[in-house]
Amino acid sequence: METRTGPTAAVAAAAGGHGAHLACAGRGALLLALVAVAAAVFLPVTESSCPRDNSLVKDVSKMYQSNYGREGFSHITIAGALAHGMKEVEVWLQTFGPGQRTPIHRHSCEEIFVVLKGKGTLLLGSSSMKYPGQPQEIPVFKNSTFSVPVNDPHQVWNSDEHEDLQVLVIISRPPVKIFTYDDWSVPHTAAKLKFPYFWDEDCLPAPKDEL
Amino acid sequence: METRTGPTAAVAAAAGGHGAHLACAGRGALLLALVAVAAAVFLPVTESSCPRDNSLVKDVSKMYQSNYGREGFSHITIAGALAHGMKEVEVWLQTFGPGQRTPIHRHSCEEIFVVLKGKGTLLLGSSSMKYPGQPQEIPVFKNSTFSVPVNDPHQVWNSDEHEDLQVLVIISRPPVKIFTYDDWSVPHTAAKLKFPYFWDEDCLPAPKDEL
Repeated sequence: METRTGPTAAVAAAAGGHGAHLACAGRGALLLALVAVAAAVFLPVTESSCPRDNSLVKDVSKMYQSNYGREGFSHITIAGALAHGMKEVEVWLQTFGPGQRTPIHRHSCEEIFVVLKGKGTLLLGSSSMKYPGQPQEIPVFKNSTFSVPVNDPHQVWNSDEHEDLQVLVIISRPPVKIFTYDDWSVPHTAAKLKFPYFWDEDCLPAPKDEL
Repeated sequence: METRTGPTAAVAAAAGGHGAHLACAGRGALLLALVAVAAAVFLPVTESSCPRDNSLVKDVSKMYQSNYGREGFSHITIAGALAHGMKEVEVWLQTFGPGQRTPIHRHSCEEIFVVLKGKGTLLLGSSSMKYPGQPQEIPVFKNSTFSVPVNDPHQVWNSDEHEDLQVLVIISRPPVKIFTYDDWSVPHTAAKLKFPYFWDEDCLPAPKDEL
């Protein structure tokens, strides 16, 4: 996993934070500041799980990624509402190890997938019955694209035994509001709202002027 | 370039179109239908430049692509408002040969780029002056991402001499309304609206129930 705040960054942040005071400080304050800087260098650095980044061009391989507690999964918010100030669309890069699946879920936003690597199965339930029911199983493959009909319960599954499945995901109206189902027989009305979703959790409580 | 309507498809369409009549037709009608089918097989097939496609999973390598009259350029609408019924987002795959550029243009929708291959330059003018002015030149590269600030005049340029530049482009609020500039000194108020844009031109006049 890439870290975006290393010791050097911590030094810069600590030094920046104390810069204004240092200009008119006495020896005691200077010493305190130096101790603070030294502590920042040697203490373990807490990595931000909502790394706001306003740089115009970003190297995707250096962006924050996490499995958000899910084994064999990786998520990167390539362009996000909370992390990057997008208002109308959001783009994710997600990788699923062999056998891994998203939860069964639905959302009212549009969602488009572009499969960059591997192959898998889109499981698609019904939104017109009272519960999702037996899902259709639709094969997806490298260099294919599909969009999930609005509000249809679905699950993306890396049904391959060996290869990773990597997808670029585009959603509208971020941040995403997701309703999850424990299984395909749960009534739509009993699906549970998970908001903010895992990758938005640490970003949402921040004050608006930091967006 | 991939063709989506070959002779076999034409036969299927012709046969399908006449099926209902054939069931209760006399010999004359049958003969006419056979002539129509034969003509469909041997006449050159007109390729649709707005190939509506409602299949859930699409092979990107078989989707309609065109240079829309621009040398060294290729555009595929991976998920589009007019071709695929998207309402809130649209995804394109675009390839620029060495030296190729988009027009200088602006739009009020959000736009995110993900660079899949090659490298190039994002030229970015100002929206706060009366005209774009001398643009910033910002290098972009494989596996980088960038989003263009709403209404900022810009141009994507494959500034490499050898390699193609391939980008996935995501826009909000499709179909896109583009204002083009002949050069960076044209006032914003004199930029020309091109709507529908080239890849939407053949799709827009179609009746709504075909969407």
